[in-house]
Amino acid sequence: MKKIYNPEPKTWSEILKRPTQSFEDTQEIVKQVFNEVKRKGDRAVSKYTSYFDGIILNTMEVSEAEIDYAATLLSDELKEAIKLAKANVEKFHLAQITEKVKVETVEGVLCWQEKRAIQKVGLYIPGGSAPLFSTVLMLAIPAKIAGCKEVILCTPPDRNATIDPAILYAASLCGITKIYKVGGIQAIAAMTFGTKTIDKVYKIFGPGNQFVTTAKQYASQNGVAIDMPAGPSELLVYADETAIPSFVASDLLSQAEHGKDSQVVLVTTSEELLEAVEKEIYLQIEQLPRKEIAKVAIENSKLILMQTEKKALKLINEYGPEHFIICAKNEDYFIENVENAGSIFIGNYTPESAGDYASGTNHTLPTNGFSKSYNGVNLDSFLKAMTFQKISKKGIQNIGKAIELMAEAEGLEAHKNAVSIRLKTLKNE
Amino acid sequence: MKKIYNPEPKTWSEILKRPTQSFEDTQEIVKQVFNEVKRKGDRAVSKYTSYFDGIILNTMEVSEAEIDYAATLLSDELKEAIKLAKANVEKFHLAQITEKVKVETVEGVLCWQEKRAIQKVGLYIPGGSAPLFSTVLMLAIPAKIAGCKEVILCTPPDRNATIDPAILYAASLCGITKIYKVGGIQAIAAMTFGTKTIDKVYKIFGPGNQFVTTAKQYASQNGVAIDMPAGPSELLVYADETAIPSFVASDLLSQAEHGKDSQVVLVTTSEELLEAVEKEIYLQIEQLPRKEIAKVAIENSKLILMQTEKKALKLINEYGPEHFIICAKNEDYFIENVENAGSIFIGNYTPESAGDYASGTNHTLPTNGFSKSYNGVNLDSFLKAMTFQKISKKGIQNIGKAIELMAEAEGLEAHKNAVSIRLKTLKNE
Repeated sequence: MKKIYNPEPKTWSEILKRPTQSFEDTQEIVKQVFNEVKRKGDRAVSKYTSYFDGIILNTMEVSEAEIDYAATLLSDELKEAIKLAKANVEKFHLAQITEKVKVETVEGVLCWQEKRAIQKVGLYIPGGSAPLFSTVLMLAIPAKIAGCKEVILCTPPDRNATIDPAILYAASLCGITKIYKVGGIQAIAAMTFGTKTIDKVYKIFGPGNQFVTTAKQYASQNGVAIDMPAGPSELLVYADETAIPSFVASDLLSQAEHGKDSQVVLVTTSEELLEAVEKEIYLQIEQLPRKEIAKVAIENSKLILMQTEKKALKLINEYGPEHFIICAKNEDYFIENVENAGSIFIGNYTPESAGDYASGTNHTLPTNGFSKSYNGVNLDSFLKAMTFQKISKKGIQNIGKAIELMAEAEGLEAHKNAVSIRLKTLKNE
Repeated sequence: MKKIYNPEPKTWSEILKRPTQSFEDTQEIVKQVFNEVKRKGDRAVSKYTSYFDGIILNTMEVSEAEIDYAATLLSDELKEAIKLAKANVEKFHLAQITEKVKVETVEGVLCWQEKRAIQKVGLYIPGGSAPLFSTVLMLAIPAKIAGCKEVILCTPPDRNATIDPAILYAASLCGITKIYKVGGIQAIAAMTFGTKTIDKVYKIFGPGNQFVTTAKQYASQNGVAIDMPAGPSELLVYADETAIPSFVASDLLSQAEHGKDSQVVLVTTSEELLEAVEKEIYLQIEQLPRKEIAKVAIENSKLILMQTEKKALKLINEYGPEHFIICAKNEDYFIENVENAGSIFIGNYTPESAGDYASGTNHTLPTNGFSKSYNGVNLDSFLKAMTFQKISKKGIQNIGKAIELMAEAEGLEAHKNAVSIRLKTLKNE
């Protein structure tokens, strides 16, 4: 692990640099798949499912029977756990519902803002080694609360043409019934253009590998919105001498097992804590089944000692972590002053994995410094705020003159005229 | 004008097609300017200001004296109009402030969501024939309410190295003091990478021509967020026999004068109204100073007769207009059921230009069908929602088992372990 002591501010950006991802080599294949899906629809989707997933499907859509059967494959314990997680995520996202904002700005000029659902959304759930059924909850629950009319889910099939039963169970629990065995670039392309089987959507959500990430960029160039730019997952822990080193180590490792490019950073004002955490990491890492992955991520991770809490906070805000754990006696200082972070975990008994699964917050969060400008997925991600205005005769008399003057000053005479013609009518009434 | 009677749904997408914009030819020059500004900073910015704007500046930043002088150049009437507009926009955006959302999802698991300002934002205001000082209000006011620490404004200088005084006055009125005489691609590039003079920002807002639009796409590929994809402005009016034809015509024309590629659509269930509006347009258009522009837009515009309100609404939702005027006796039906529109104007005395300037709503809105997935700029555009969670010993005991089970089922042992180590400690307490 890289230990860094009291780094000068001018070195921070170098120290905190994320590994640069190159999408150059994914461009060509993404372009090709998009062009073909656009022209040939389902036929192209099937072709690439066969090519990338090594499987020829009779039908892309998951049947009701398959969904029912999936539920029988899970233990009751796991089903209860998923239900608890669902209940918590639901509670927290239900609380995010906002009222209509209504203001009479001047007499007779009534303005309001109302949020309405994005009508058609597509959720992408990666397959592969870790079946992320928790992500199904994180996307499907707010989509349903928002009232999206059409929610479809794409996820790649395995070699036996099946989908992980926990993914099907979680989707069904959330009321999602349109599930397609389609993954990767061809899934994103199908949701972008629409095919006979898969409907075009207005916004695509969900994580994925480099190909999926590039495909989502292409989707957004083709008029479909996406949740956010994606990158490798990150965790930054700020801990002082009140933190429990073995807990901190377990959190850093939970991040490190995600992938070799995962970002793990410890910032502390206590050298003792720093040393203790390092020792604990090396102890715990040996027990992990995914230790080969975790070791690479840990080797690139940073343990940073800072002189003061103020400097530590400044460095943290410059980094803008996706996940930020605070284990410190002055936790309020950090809570109040953190400017850039996706989700924040406070205290010794709040592991990051609580937010990944069951606390209630969303785990789809901005990486790669995007917490400076983006938030994670929340209820509003599935809504759009529309504004309304209704102006009475009195109202247009109150603001008409100002509009005329401003439109004229901007050289937009027809804008002015739309007001003048009304004011004139009122004068003659 | 194109008159279309009771079109079949399968023809709608063709009828409602927007002109396709090609950005192919802007790519090369945008790439070049970006690369050069990234490497050479201010020197490159100056070079391209000289190249595109035909002017060599001694200093890019607008001085305090210039700002003060600008105010003396405007009539008191116009200044009062701008102040009224500011007051209304401020009222409506202040009302959008949301409270902290706080929920104890299960005993001991406290989750909350809090919105914090995007710390550094850049506003882009186009120059050219129409100095859009109203856009300064629409962007600067919510930025200030949100509490963005650094708000900078870039706008191109004219041949005399000056900025339109109304732009400077509006900016200053909103408390913006960092104003740079830099426009076009080089302005977006400077705010993306930062130069010695112009700071790097986290999010860029504002309209612009094709070059600016492509430059904003490049910015977003370089880690800077943008407000939304931009396209030519649009207006769709739904009017029935209760609408006043001359008012409707004036609104359609106010949109048409924006540019030759402006989109203007009338949808109605009354053939009589359709004919009357057409007649009025040809009467009014001759009076407009920008009639050459308006005529081209009007030639491409559509007057569509629909058999029923239900069908009309369906067509409108399929189009997803940026601006949507409703002048109908059944206005409530349209208000309640419109799914896709940026800003909605209701009744005979609510011209679209009211929203452009002074009603209080924002005029930076999604075009090109993006109202299906995006909202216009609002207070939240300058904030990001961050989530927090604080779990007590009791709390982790309540949800710990569920996390362990789910993490295990996803094959993420270290995620499980971060909980197990805590539960074990508590058991031994």
